[in-house]
Amino acid sequence: MKEKKQEKLPTIGYKGTRDFFPEDMRIRQFMFSVMRGVVESYGYEEYDGPMLESLDLYRAKTGEEIVGKQLYNFVDKGGREVAMRPEMTPTLARMVASRQRELPRPIRWFSFPNLWRYEQPGLGRLREHWQLNVDIFGVDGYEAEVEILKLASDILFAFGADKTMFRIRISHRKILDGFFENSLKLDPSKAQEVSKILDKKNKISREEYIKEVEKTIPGDPTALGKIDEFLSCSINSISDIDGIPMEIIEETRNLLSQLEKLGLKELIEFDPSIVRGFDYYTGFVYEIFDVSPQNKRSLYGGGRYDNLTGLFSNESISGTGFGMGDVTLKNFLEAHNLLPNLGRENVVCIPLLDERYLSEVFQVADLIRKNGIACEVFLNSKQKLGKQITTAEKKGMKYILLMGDDEIQKGIYSFKNLEERTQVDIPKQELISSIQKELRI
Amino acid sequence: MKEKKQEKLPTIGYKGTRDFFPEDMRIRQFMFSVMRGVVESYGYEEYDGPMLESLDLYRAKTGEEIVGKQLYNFVDKGGREVAMRPEMTPTLARMVASRQRELPRPIRWFSFPNLWRYEQPGLGRLREHWQLNVDIFGVDGYEAEVEILKLASDILFAFGADKTMFRIRISHRKILDGFFENSLKLDPSKAQEVSKILDKKNKISREEYIKEVEKTIPGDPTALGKIDEFLSCSINSISDIDGIPMEIIEETRNLLSQLEKLGLKELIEFDPSIVRGFDYYTGFVYEIFDVSPQNKRSLYGGGRYDNLTGLFSNESISGTGFGMGDVTLKNFLEAHNLLPNLGRENVVCIPLLDERYLSEVFQVADLIRKNGIACEVFLNSKQKLGKQITTAEKKGMKYILLMGDDEIQKGIYSFKNLEERTQVDIPKQELISSIQKELRI
Repeated sequence: MKEKKQEKLPTIGYKGTRDFFPEDMRIRQFMFSVMRGVVESYGYEEYDGPMLESLDLYRAKTGEEIVGKQLYNFVDKGGREVAMRPEMTPTLARMVASRQRELPRPIRWFSFPNLWRYEQPGLGRLREHWQLNVDIFGVDGYEAEVEILKLASDILFAFGADKTMFRIRISHRKILDGFFENSLKLDPSKAQEVSKILDKKNKISREEYIKEVEKTIPGDPTALGKIDEFLSCSINSISDIDGIPMEIIEETRNLLSQLEKLGLKELIEFDPSIVRGFDYYTGFVYEIFDVSPQNKRSLYGGGRYDNLTGLFSNESISGTGFGMGDVTLKNFLEAHNLLPNLGRENVVCIPLLDERYLSEVFQVADLIRKNGIACEVFLNSKQKLGKQITTAEKKGMKYILLMGDDEIQKGIYSFKNLEERTQVDIPKQELISSIQKELRI
Repeated sequence: MKEKKQEKLPTIGYKGTRDFFPEDMRIRQFMFSVMRGVVESYGYEEYDGPMLESLDLYRAKTGEEIVGKQLYNFVDKGGREVAMRPEMTPTLARMVASRQRELPRPIRWFSFPNLWRYEQPGLGRLREHWQLNVDIFGVDGYEAEVEILKLASDILFAFGADKTMFRIRISHRKILDGFFENSLKLDPSKAQEVSKILDKKNKISREEYIKEVEKTIPGDPTALGKIDEFLSCSINSISDIDGIPMEIIEETRNLLSQLEKLGLKELIEFDPSIVRGFDYYTGFVYEIFDVSPQNKRSLYGGGRYDNLTGLFSNESISGTGFGMGDVTLKNFLEAHNLLPNLGRENVVCIPLLDERYLSEVFQVADLIRKNGIACEVFLNSKQKLGKQITTAEKKGMKYILLMGDDEIQKGIYSFKNLEERTQVDIPKQELISSIQKELRI
């Protein structure tokens, strides 16, 4: 029995999830706070919904692959079928629908949900990840996309990215639909199948791609050539393709030209191959790509859906928006060397040299904190000063305020810079100004 | 078939959860950011863990009632038994254990997890709630409790609370244990049962309480009187009770006296009735109570556990810490009228009066945002100005920047204060300074 009791549990977390130790959490908080700053500066407001939703919410709209194979769904103790959210849009749609009549438009909302998918964990693929979601509703024109794409770029600029580091690729679902229907003469279900092949085109070999197209469109030897021609079109040559509505080409031109006027010319590309996985996009679709060789992939993906709240209400509302995952963003920042030093240098450490000094040490710490400087007090007075200093160094701290017998009696503390191995005397009454000077803040 | 298709889904979320609309989210973000500010100023570092953990983690330590009746557990698609976290401590213990040897001490960590319990939703009882968790490890003495309780009070002070609004109640598990063992002569399992009765004493009637005590300790007519005497003890009279270790009383006195020296005298009470629900506390236990008549209950609860990582490792580490729920905190702030106005007055709105102005409007908006002022552009140029202004008002905005034909040509914009019904002209080159003046920032 005793043996049994001593079997220890493993310290590794659930497969495909991450533990955020303080150094990881600092990065996550840094990324979220930069993003939040930009998005809020555009007047977007943050929302959140519950981690669990009724399974029905996903059965209806989320792609089949996700619901069947990737959803974390179960029956709760009261017999309700529930699921952990695999994406935020269904929750967003439910929330918007519940106040559809009263919410003044444009509705500008954002969120940082954690999302769950049952996947085989791999590079950039996790079971739990976080995603910035930004959406605007109630603007039918391309002006909304101008804003959304400018905002998406501004987020990367706010991290210090420049125009050599990423590209914005834009298309419109009706361009693809027009090509499928009028040029390839496909029925909607075939069109859906072909769109899936295009979506993964860059991930499979040319041979595989050809095989899949020929299997899906049998008996049309011109199909492959037509698709190749279509995919190589610019916004100007796209009008040569049969059956693409002129007003859609015009609207796309407007979007591109407005983005150019806003200084984003070098970043934007018209790219008719863009599909985006989900079934709900009906207008513009877009992606932001990292151009670094080691991380060549989509950072953001998004688009316009004409009837977000259709599951809940007969009134339709049009919106456009994107999602960006925390893992891809972190990879982007690392690939371009944009992660700043998020250390703890500016936390002042006060060792405790004797239990008797506790209340004086706490009062001094309090004063430092009230002046906006973080201060950590070591509480093991039995530990020798040398040991306490080593601990401070291990914790990434740089500044030590010494309050020993001598210092307390004279009212003059010693302030050590561990990195530069310097030390200054600070009279009690000049404590804050001197510390600010030492910390260069 | 068509009928069927038009059945709409309900817009209400899963039972016992909340949708955070922007006005709710502002409050949540405000609360978290005040708390984060205080906790970080003490040198605590934020961590987070996954929403799902192995079921084993909770089977071992979390109270039976939670695991049996209140846990959200299920089997994943790979056959693993998992659970949505009902509390953060098991995750925290797992993470600390995984780095137990390398983490420099004291370890000061905090987190804002959302937690799940299958409960009948009711006043202040939800299935999903958020909880600030603050813990310090590696300090064996009462100094850690001095810091933790000062920090807990400072959080409430940071919200504007004063000393009339809450109380800190402190006891030590060994005081209760000593009383049970030596004065009531109870074996550990009986002691556990009686502690549960004491824990709910204030929620049941005196008759029920007496009945339960008599049922649990049959044949000892003195038990009730002894318990009454014990519960009414002060820190000075507690030494009259048989079998309470003197060194524990001394340590408790030290803690109380240090907190007094730090100016918290009016707030602290020694209260031997404090049990705290969980089984793992082994030293000091504490609660912070709201004293307002409409919200008379525990805001924080916490205590010391001597062997946090025992499930994972043979090395023990002692820690002390507390949790505070977002619902109780919000109730406290509301009861004491401490929630500030978290409106959107300082977001500047620019109506779009003509599609042609889009790029000029965006450039001006950009400039405003880069100067730290949020700016929302309305994008429906077909909407009349009056309608756009009404929308701005509905959105809680106060300031409008007008950029019409006239304004753009002259380079002089009109800046309207919707609340005071005033308007000033702002030359383009003085845009930022003038807006700052109008916003009084």
